[in-house]
Amino acid sequence: MTEIRKPIAVAVVGASGYTGVELLRLLALHPDVQVVAVAAKRAAGRRIDEVFGNLRGVMDLLVEEFDAASIAARATVAFCALPHGESAPIVAELMMRGVRVFDLSADFRLHDERVWQQWYGHDGATHPAAKLLAEAKYGLPELHRAALRDARLVAVPGCYPTASILAIAPLLAAHVVEARGLIVDAKSGISGAGRAPALGAHFPEVGEGIRAYKVAGTHRHTPEIEQELGFAAGTPLRVLFTPHLVPMSRGILACVYALPISSAVTLGQLRDAMHAAYDLEPFVTVLPAGTLPDTALVRGSNRVHVAVELDARTGRVLAMAAIDNLVKGAAGQAVQCMNIALGLAETAGLLQVAMFP
Amino acid sequence: MTEIRKPIAVAVVGASGYTGVELLRLLALHPDVQVVAVAAKRAAGRRIDEVFGNLRGVMDLLVEEFDAASIAARATVAFCALPHGESAPIVAELMMRGVRVFDLSADFRLHDERVWQQWYGHDGATHPAAKLLAEAKYGLPELHRAALRDARLVAVPGCYPTASILAIAPLLAAHVVEARGLIVDAKSGISGAGRAPALGAHFPEVGEGIRAYKVAGTHRHTPEIEQELGFAAGTPLRVLFTPHLVPMSRGILACVYALPISSAVTLGQLRDAMHAAYDLEPFVTVLPAGTLPDTALVRGSNRVHVAVELDARTGRVLAMAAIDNLVKGAAGQAVQCMNIALGLAETAGLLQVAMFP
Amino acid sequence: MTEIRKPIAVAVVGASGYTGVELLRLLALHPDVQVVAVAAKRAAGRRIDEVFGNLRGVMDLLVEEFDAASIAARATVAFCALPHGESAPIVAELMMRGVRVFDLSADFRLHDERVWQQWYGHDGATHPAAKLLAEAKYGLPELHRAALRDARLVAVPGCYPTASILAIAPLLAAHVVEARGLIVDAKSGISGAGRAPALGAHFPEVGEGIRAYKVAGTHRHTPEIEQELGFAAGTPLRVLFTPHLVPMSRGILACVYALPISSAVTLGQLRDAMHAAYDLEPFVTVLPAGTLPDTALVRGSNRVHVAVELDARTGRVLAMAAIDNLVKGAAGQAVQCMNIALGLAETAGLLQVAMFP
Amino acid sequence: MTEIRKPIAVAVVGASGYTGVELLRLLALHPDVQVVAVAAKRAAGRRIDEVFGNLRGVMDLLVEEFDAASIAARATVAFCALPHGESAPIVAELMMRGVRVFDLSADFRLHDERVWQQWYGHDGATHPAAKLLAEAKYGLPELHRAALRDARLVAVPGCYPTASILAIAPLLAAHVVEARGLIVDAKSGISGAGRAPALGAHFPEVGEGIRAYKVAGTHRHTPEIEQELGFAAGTPLRVLFTPHLVPMSRGILACVYALPISSAVTLGQLRDAMHAAYDLEPFVTVLPAGTLPDTALVRGSNRVHVAVELDARTGRVLAMAAIDNLVKGAAGQAVQCMNIALGLAETAGLLQVAMFP
Repeated sequence: MTEIRKPIAVAVVGASGYTGVELLRLLALHPDVQVVAVAAKRAAGRRIDEVFGNLRGVMDLLVEEFDAASIAARATVAFCALPHGESAPIVAELMMRGVRVFDLSADFRLHDERVWQQWYGHDGATHPAAKLLAEAKYGLPELHRAALRDARLVAVPGCYPTASILAIAPLLAAHVVEARGLIVDAKSGISGAGRAPALGAHFPEVGEGIRAYKVAGTHRHTPEIEQELGFAAGTPLRVLFTPHLVPMSRGILACVYALPISSAVTLGQLRDAMHAAYDLEPFVTVLPAGTLPDTALVRGSNRVHVAVELDARTGRVLAMAAIDNLVKGAAGQAVQCMNIALGLAETAGLLQVAMFP
Repeated sequence: MTEIRKPIAVAVVGASGYTGVELLRLLALHPDVQVVAVAAKRAAGRRIDEVFGNLRGVMDLLVEEFDAASIAARATVAFCALPHGESAPIVAELMMRGVRVFDLSADFRLHDERVWQQWYGHDGATHPAAKLLAEAKYGLPELHRAALRDARLVAVPGCYPTASILAIAPLLAAHVVEARGLIVDAKSGISGAGRAPALGAHFPEVGEGIRAYKVAGTHRHTPEIEQELGFAAGTPLRVLFTPHLVPMSRGILACVYALPISSAVTLGQLRDAMHAAYDLEPFVTVLPAGTLPDTALVRGSNRVHVAVELDARTGRVLAMAAIDNLVKGAAGQAVQCMNIALGLAETAGLLQVAMFP
Repeated sequence: MTEIRKPIAVAVVGASGYTGVELLRLLALHPDVQVVAVAAKRAAGRRIDEVFGNLRGVMDLLVEEFDAASIAARATVAFCALPHGESAPIVAELMMRGVRVFDLSADFRLHDERVWQQWYGHDGATHPAAKLLAEAKYGLPELHRAALRDARLVAVPGCYPTASILAIAPLLAAHVVEARGLIVDAKSGISGAGRAPALGAHFPEVGEGIRAYKVAGTHRHTPEIEQELGFAAGTPLRVLFTPHLVPMSRGILACVYALPISSAVTLGQLRDAMHAAYDLEPFVTVLPAGTLPDTALVRGSNRVHVAVELDARTGRVLAMAAIDNLVKGAAGQAVQCMNIALGLAETAGLLQVAMFP
Repeated sequence: MTEIRKPIAVAVVGASGYTGVELLRLLALHPDVQVVAVAAKRAAGRRIDEVFGNLRGVMDLLVEEFDAASIAARATVAFCALPHGESAPIVAELMMRGVRVFDLSADFRLHDERVWQQWYGHDGATHPAAKLLAEAKYGLPELHRAALRDARLVAVPGCYPTASILAIAPLLAAHVVEARGLIVDAKSGISGAGRAPALGAHFPEVGEGIRAYKVAGTHRHTPEIEQELGFAAGTPLRVLFTPHLVPMSRGILACVYALPISSAVTLGQLRDAMHAAYDLEPFVTVLPAGTLPDTALVRGSNRVHVAVELDARTGRVLAMAAIDNLVKGAAGQAVQCMNIALGLAETAGLLQVAMFP
């Protein structure tokens, strides 16, 4: 007799942005899940496939105003894809009602409230749900899989941190590179800037140029990268982080420059550390020697392509990772975390093959 | 007791182009199918995921030189994604050995050998497998679903014809527009030009411009459009076809201009004809009034978005369809044809939601 | 003795949009002109090269709030690059003070106030400066050069009309195509949507797709095209106009479908009409037979590439023109009109070679 | 009495690539120059405006096969835009006949023949014109203006070196950053890959992705950067150079990471060093504090935008430069060198304002 398992009822809160629609794209085909509610302020009252035409024929839920009680009455799991600051109170309300939350905002990613204060607490603002910080798990399965099992609140990492951390963490953990002096030069597609129209993402302004922005320790993904790489290295560390906008919709390429722990370190050792960390990972591929990551090859999928090189002339390490910022850098990773937290197959709903070209 | 059905063994011949990789992307997740062989001249001897990095972690078959006997020994179904002219002899060899073939070339799309002769028969060349023309079914399910059941050879339509035909066929079939005077102004992404490097698809040449090409009755997709629209209209007809290259990778938008059969025809009647034709179709959406197709909303999916407008000022009809040229315009449609021919669920392996953005 | 001519003092009003910056790019190098004032509401108080970084090292004027008296005290010529409706009162103020105006808005393009009323007069609004309509010259030198000499007010055409009219006007004027049944299928780069951030020009929304918009007689450039093609044909006419957005910053390609006046019309006659109209034009090139216009080849220049084809199979004419929407479609054409109106060399300041790639 | 100076007769050898057409775009409007010959193997016998449609109406010279005697009979100056290796013998032939040469290949950029040997001398090949190495001047006016006066042979720098060197040289020269440990993370538009069709520049392959290539000391621009930065620093040095391909046609952004010479170095000192080096330069702008370079703002112009930042958290310097790879990174710089060498105004023919958007 075949057991029919009832699908898990899921809500997506903040469904009108790019992370929201990407969650819906993935969840629509997840074998164990049913999306029962989509909430969004801007779009409330409209059909979700009017808001996002790519969902026509796939999903026709009505977008609702967020109401914690109503969501909790129908869903056991919620994905929150809201701006930082807006997310925390909503997460708290949902959790109070027993909903498990996978939060894609920055609100619960930093364990140390003081660090949060420095980077997000403008004008002395305090964290809107500080009590939950201790419970929140950082949703990077490759580093924290065990902690994610049975998690009630997962803080899904930012897109830049995912790529940056996965590029270099194994080398730090294996103590083949130094923890000090790390430089992350990262390049992002423009969907990373969100869906709200702004000059900085206006096609004619950005369509044919590349530029860095929020450099020299001003981008808020910096502390998150430092927290996790410090965890990997076993020692606090600082990172110089330089983000760039590239004229493409999706993708992040992170290039991390590091010093080998000694001049005796070989490329073989570096590659071994990568393989040791990732060969059993369902979504990470260590590319063959001589092949470099290309964001064009992971688009639409939850996969990560990583590579490491050693520059013999200058004695430096270059580690790289390419992801789709909206999948492994956001929605896909959130689904992966949910799968782990709920004891589902980790790859459920995440088998999409990257679309090329 | 659950019956375990053995997967259908499938080969992809001509796997090193964009249609080939797209077939593999779709077939990799098809629930009833297993890809057992990939053949390609250029890439023979390499692993398919070296040829197409997006397949890393998905498929690691070795690309082989085409050998009909070897393929037939392992596969019951073959997709041929070869250039026209090269395909026909290979198709014939496979069919002789009992393999069912879904051919993505132009070799079997035209029923009338004389028409083939005019458009493809340079220097008096004759069709390399003319005997098969009678058996070949034109693989557009929306027009020929019944004929595709149990088909042994399916000629999967070109990308431009798919979009052009689906935009206007229901209006011709319903006799609300005239069969004469049709104009198709179509716009294609650059993957339509194939994977062989050429100045006409070199990034700096095409990255920031739009141009028409092969206009005024010189593009070889013209007779195919005419054959099928003539079938829909019940009368032979001619079409003025103008293709364009647009600086994007994927997508075709076809705009078809037509004359209403009389000045009494209303937009309501036009929309009714569209709905009557498509409301039960699994992959076609008639957009709500006032919404126009956008290729960005069907990327990566087998879906078709259609719309029709009536210009009151000039008394003309404008019908439009947007598809992904590599999915509904090639690989997805081929899979859809296979599903029908083999009696599988028509949407099997084709549920991908379009990727937006 | 060399006569030193004092440069003409020019103001640009509405300098913070794409047409504004393009005017400044061209005027900065115009040999007979000096830009003495730039006005813009949004950007007032900032240096113009802070507003548009491409002007660094070129121009460092302070953007001012518009003040007609102040402008008139310094400038004898003004270019107005304001939204329709906003422009007319400002034009009127400037003209009252003796400033010659080249207006890039739609406010003075339509000669017939009733037509303006239909297309722009929502809620019964009347034209804000109707008295000036009679004086305004339509600034398309190829059709109205004589009228532009000594003009005090020039209504510079829209981008779509420039391309559409130049593609087909010579064939209408030569009576080789019919005036009825014209279809214009036009494709524009996204700068045509202006600089104000909006979802419809947000990079991730439009970066990888093509779509039509404002179809079936709803785009406001329609009456302008009809007015001018009616003038060329010597009879009122109607046009079916379909505009599209293409993922590139600049460029318009207009494809015009027409019926030959009789089946005896040859391609040679069509080409002759084109050559007769354009061979002496400083900015229009009739491409050699078999070559089609490409917007990538006119970017940054005031040039127009035109071609005409006759489809023998369907007996229809296809005429095409490619321009840079911001140059010949706006700022360059305005400068060309100024040159004519002021008796300067027509090509002064307009010799930029198109940038390719 | 006004002296009428006869224009300088100029030839462009290797005119069928992107550097060639860009030279012609600039030279066509140079006030002191006339292009008298264009040579190119591939395109010989065709009109240059058939090869490059953007030159229609601008230049209609016939492309000729290279013949040194014939060129020397007509031209006093030649620009060579040939592949490395092919250029040197042609340069030698021209110089022997008294033609001054501005060579855009890599053949004469490295002063030290042994370094050339390491990077270009595969299979023990020796430099094809080693005797000229001593005479060649490195054509970066900002570092070598005096040496360029009266130069007979100028080796115009590569695109990556121009951006990389200009970003950091002033800080090295002012001894505010250390000479060791430099990292250059550079991003280039795809025209940098040349005009020969190749998979690596095929639109669908590169249109929606970013990737690094030739990393870890394998890109041949590395020794050139090292030579010149060593010259600026007054000591030999090594650079870790990582080039990337970005989906845009033009532009290079170089980000250089460096260590301040001491922890006492302030951002003010860094900016002072930049201003001291560049405030009198005709083509370099040090951006205001807080503004970062964007390649979109220098497209089509010979300008360089530079900025420097100090990351207080990690104590590192980030210096950046944006150029148009085909102008300041190639053709424009070559013209600038010619202007200096021939005693013309340094900015002659180079006043184009960057095209934005």
